[in-house]
Amino acid sequence: MKINISFPDGAVKQFEKGVNAMEIATSISEGLARKVIAASVNGETWDLSRPINMDAAIQLLTWNDASGKSTFWHSSAHLLAEAVEEVFPGVKFWVGPPIENGFYYDMDLGDRKITEEDLVKLEGIMLEHAKKNEEFIRKEISKQEAITYFSNKGDEYKLDLLNNLEDGHITFYTQGNFTDLCRGPHIPHTGLIKALKLTNIAGAYWKGDEKNKQLTRIYGISFPQQKELDAYLLMLEEAKKRDHRKLGKELGIFTMDDDVGPGLPLWLPNGAIIIEELERLGKETELKGGYKRVVTPHIAKENLYLTSGHLPYYADSMYPPMEMDGTKYYLRAMNCPHHHKVFDAEPKSYKDLPYRLAEYGTCYRYEQSGELFGLMRVRCLHMNDAHIYCTKEQFADEFKAVNEMYLRYFKIFGIEKYVMRLSLHDPSKLGQKYVNEPQLWLETEKLVRDVLIETKTPFIEVQDEAAFYGPKIDVQIWSIIGKEFTLATNQVDFSQGKSFNLQYTNADNTTSTPLIIHRAPLGTHERFIGFLLEHYAGKFPVWLSPKQVEILPINDQCLSFAKTVHAELLENGIRASLDDRNEKIGKKIRDAEVAKTPYMLIIGEKEVKENRVSLRVRGKGDAGPFNPNDFMKKIKAEIADRKSGE
Amino acid sequence: MKINISFPDGAVKQFEKGVNAMEIATSISEGLARKVIAASVNGETWDLSRPINMDAAIQLLTWNDASGKSTFWHSSAHLLAEAVEEVFPGVKFWVGPPIENGFYYDMDLGDRKITEEDLVKLEGIMLEHAKKNEEFIRKEISKQEAITYFSNKGDEYKLDLLNNLEDGHITFYTQGNFTDLCRGPHIPHTGLIKALKLTNIAGAYWKGDEKNKQLTRIYGISFPQQKELDAYLLMLEEAKKRDHRKLGKELGIFTMDDDVGPGLPLWLPNGAIIIEELERLGKETELKGGYKRVVTPHIAKENLYLTSGHLPYYADSMYPPMEMDGTKYYLRAMNCPHHHKVFDAEPKSYKDLPYRLAEYGTCYRYEQSGELFGLMRVRCLHMNDAHIYCTKEQFADEFKAVNEMYLRYFKIFGIEKYVMRLSLHDPSKLGQKYVNEPQLWLETEKLVRDVLIETKTPFIEVQDEAAFYGPKIDVQIWSIIGKEFTLATNQVDFSQGKSFNLQYTNADNTTSTPLIIHRAPLGTHERFIGFLLEHYAGKFPVWLSPKQVEILPINDQCLSFAKTVHAELLENGIRASLDDRNEKIGKKIRDAEVAKTPYMLIIGEKEVKENRVSLRVRGKGDAGPFNPNDFMKKIKAEIADRKSGE
Repeated sequence: MKINISFPDGAVKQFEKGVNAMEIATSISEGLARKVIAASVNGETWDLSRPINMDAAIQLLTWNDASGKSTFWHSSAHLLAEAVEEVFPGVKFWVGPPIENGFYYDMDLGDRKITEEDLVKLEGIMLEHAKKNEEFIRKEISKQEAITYFSNKGDEYKLDLLNNLEDGHITFYTQGNFTDLCRGPHIPHTGLIKALKLTNIAGAYWKGDEKNKQLTRIYGISFPQQKELDAYLLMLEEAKKRDHRKLGKELGIFTMDDDVGPGLPLWLPNGAIIIEELERLGKETELKGGYKRVVTPHIAKENLYLTSGHLPYYADSMYPPMEMDGTKYYLRAMNCPHHHKVFDAEPKSYKDLPYRLAEYGTCYRYEQSGELFGLMRVRCLHMNDAHIYCTKEQFADEFKAVNEMYLRYFKIFGIEKYVMRLSLHDPSKLGQKYVNEPQLWLETEKLVRDVLIETKTPFIEVQDEAAFYGPKIDVQIWSIIGKEFTLATNQVDFSQGKSFNLQYTNADNTTSTPLIIHRAPLGTHERFIGFLLEHYAGKFPVWLSPKQVEILPINDQCLSFAKTVHAELLENGIRASLDDRNEKIGKKIRDAEVAKTPYMLIIGEKEVKENRVSLRVRGKGDAGPFNPNDFMKKIKAEIADRKSGE
Repeated sequence: MKINISFPDGAVKQFEKGVNAMEIATSISEGLARKVIAASVNGETWDLSRPINMDAAIQLLTWNDASGKSTFWHSSAHLLAEAVEEVFPGVKFWVGPPIENGFYYDMDLGDRKITEEDLVKLEGIMLEHAKKNEEFIRKEISKQEAITYFSNKGDEYKLDLLNNLEDGHITFYTQGNFTDLCRGPHIPHTGLIKALKLTNIAGAYWKGDEKNKQLTRIYGISFPQQKELDAYLLMLEEAKKRDHRKLGKELGIFTMDDDVGPGLPLWLPNGAIIIEELERLGKETELKGGYKRVVTPHIAKENLYLTSGHLPYYADSMYPPMEMDGTKYYLRAMNCPHHHKVFDAEPKSYKDLPYRLAEYGTCYRYEQSGELFGLMRVRCLHMNDAHIYCTKEQFADEFKAVNEMYLRYFKIFGIEKYVMRLSLHDPSKLGQKYVNEPQLWLETEKLVRDVLIETKTPFIEVQDEAAFYGPKIDVQIWSIIGKEFTLATNQVDFSQGKSFNLQYTNADNTTSTPLIIHRAPLGTHERFIGFLLEHYAGKFPVWLSPKQVEILPINDQCLSFAKTVHAELLENGIRASLDDRNEKIGKKIRDAEVAKTPYMLIIGEKEVKENRVSLRVRGKGDAGPFNPNDFMKKIKAEIADRKSGE
């Protein structure tokens, strides 16, 4: 009997019933068969060897797919367990899932302790097993048999897991000498794992409850190629040096204070300069884009958030209310409701549309204190926010303009790798998870997709992850060292306009509700500056540098000329300072390098005589003599162009 | 027997015991005697006729002194009551105090209603009595006699007042046919009141409690000269046209919204442009003044405000707390505690001082909803704030620089009349109302006074009105039509540095606490823009105008050239727009005048041919032909210079 297998590109092929995904891959090409890790079958991730007995939509997953990676790492956790069991016989296992980067396994080693040396030994054993190409064998098993197996093994943790499983839905996976209770899926065999590193040992309470026993957690990561592991370890090393919390302190960018509160950064003078420059960029760009600016309060009455639906649905992410004058006031977690009120303050006609309102609005969101992390996860967010109110006909152009704004920013900041993640609705959840406008969903999703395709923007589509009120795009970017950041969200909204009863008059005097685009290409200052600190390793391009020029006179005889140069730079709006300390020039240069000042102007007696400065470039050393006016021209041009780097 | 009378200029003269202030005035000059209204005797305001029996410091008060004015208006309230009693016999009176502008009297008219016509009639009767030069006669009276008098008169309100008065301290004042229970003082006779106007009738609950009976309140104002009344009424009329609430709506500056909350303005696009321009001015000025900018959160934990002393002392003026994570968070009512934390974030040495931190910080203060008034009394304040941390030696220069900044701003905004009100401490209240640093009080008060004298800044001194932590200056300004505004406060602070344990290292490695100057020359955006709206009557100078140029093509044949001119202006950062509606040129001009756009460029066929524009100036009409480049130069220069107006 034949079944129909459809592929992501729309092609449909016939195969014998019972064919597996590996056979399908082989039928396409040997090369593909070598790379394939697992398969998505009707939206579920399956082992390659599992027989397919019905018509199905399949996608062959490789290392480059997120679910391919997690399958790979899940199998690596089993490989770790196999090695641990060899070295620590009698070990009992809890769970071993894949995580964002790699995997871990939680285990009970009894009285034994695991050391850094053990990790090296385990890595060796894992690689030996990997080389043996041990197959991952799936076996459906009855609950009773499973209980018998783990009772004999004496692993009460797995027995606890079994308690919650239903008979008929239980599977074991075996590779080499190791068998685990596991839902799968797994890679075909261990041989795909060519490189690995056990990165960390930690304690973890059983089931995350501190009243329970503490288990040992081993973290690791693995790759299909050695060079990928090498690159990853290098990136980790580099990321440590670029940690935005460390750089933020060293460079006087921000501070946190216990009396102010967790997750509430105070921006120090150097950080405030970067904020000012980013806002200037945002404002300039938005002015050219036809945006109007507004300034709105950080609080509002409960009623505003009942209208917007933030209350009660989003209440957990908001600060608690202030009760006053018989009503409740809330710190805003989003700027949109205030902007809708601005839209509504004066009557609008179709001639006023598209109406684009921008604000560097500050929002406050409640995050669990355990979730807070430097500038990346905070409670106070300065957003590069705007809302565009437009007609359905204007939507595609407006959305395209927003998209182009993103790309322009990426270029300015040297962001070369990015992906837009387009989240779509699920038609079966209309009226529940999604506002019940089937036609509008399809239309706007298509409009967004078409813009992304037309502009050749790299994007992936994700089912069932849209916002309540429309499709959204999450923008993911990678720093220069390859670390991934979620920058911003870009949302289409055909619901809030109705909730707020926003209207404009058409040419024929009828009224309509505008579509709304929520956009914030530069995200929040907090996250974006955190990203930039790591991206640039604190070596900001000249236009963003808190200090742009340090003037270094060699001795007091040169001070008068140095002061003239300094005054001239300040007069031209350059952030320059003069190091007139009684220190050796070598020390002055070192200090300016540590402060990551992009340009140093060294002034000795020769320079004074010749009316020149000796330019030194951060991290690069001597760049030759310059006439002060020529240097001024050079730096002003670089700042005006927002030149991205060295 | 002789007593010594000392005068404000330090002179001391001897008079017979029992002399009164009028006799003293007469002894100085007849002219003074004609102008004098009351006297300050050892700091208390006295009737001119009251005998002085001890050595005393006296100041002769005229209409030009605040307490002279309030005595004048208090007497006018008695004159009103006399007239009311004539027209409405049996009326019962509650209280009749002077207010900021004029006076009122609250009364119970029984079933009778008072009308606008009655007010005219009452004005006439008051003037008749005024012409009679009725003397205000003071009489000390026993409590029992007083009770008998008002029991006979049947005025239960005055009897209620008497309840709370102590026998031996009760006085009656009589002029003409009217006698009132009154502490005084009063002007010598009604003849000084040459002009008056009853301005309003309102209801007022007895003792301000809405459970009590509603009394009738009549408001009025009076002057020693008719021309002063005329000027006042003209100013009122003009102020009505310039009402910032009316103009704010007409010009799209701000809006209020019930769902957001009272006292929380939303700044519309035109308002946001003015904010942006003011902030640009503030930032430029502060950059030149050596300030560093910071950005800090709008909230903080309770603990911060316990340290600063805002809690519990200022709690009534703060929004209520948000309870979270077992602590209380407050919206900030002031920026200083956050700035102190920034000062403290990194170690400071004497070389870092003066350390000047500036922020356009938004604060939230609770005001009773009845107190809220347009932009003048709000709950959300965008402050032009900064704090200067300095040594005692640096203080005078820093304070002078701040003072000069005020004067520079006054010049930019065409504020010609201003007074600094220097509030001093009272040595007898050290350790209670004032921080107990007698020497520092005297030193800083002298430093501040010396700067004001040296810079010839008009100022007055007020005893016992300083802040807890140091002397302060309140800046009062008058708009072009003579309306008074309190713009900002400027404070010296030698207390918070200690509370926050702020320190810097001296050259000898010891540590000291800095003095702090709190300053906000542009006040808050709310109050300042409210002031500017009235000051300019909405006709902002070009640099502040939300729209600077309107281009008015006469017909479609001129559109292409108009578009070129428009694009050129936008390219140069001029806020210009193009009125391409299919309307007559007269209508277009009228609309641009109504929108108070400073420049209109009219483009007809002649202009196109000659590559010119016809300039029209707001409120002034035709200003002749201009080459577009020449106009560009002109407007750019005006903007760069922040030229103050027409």
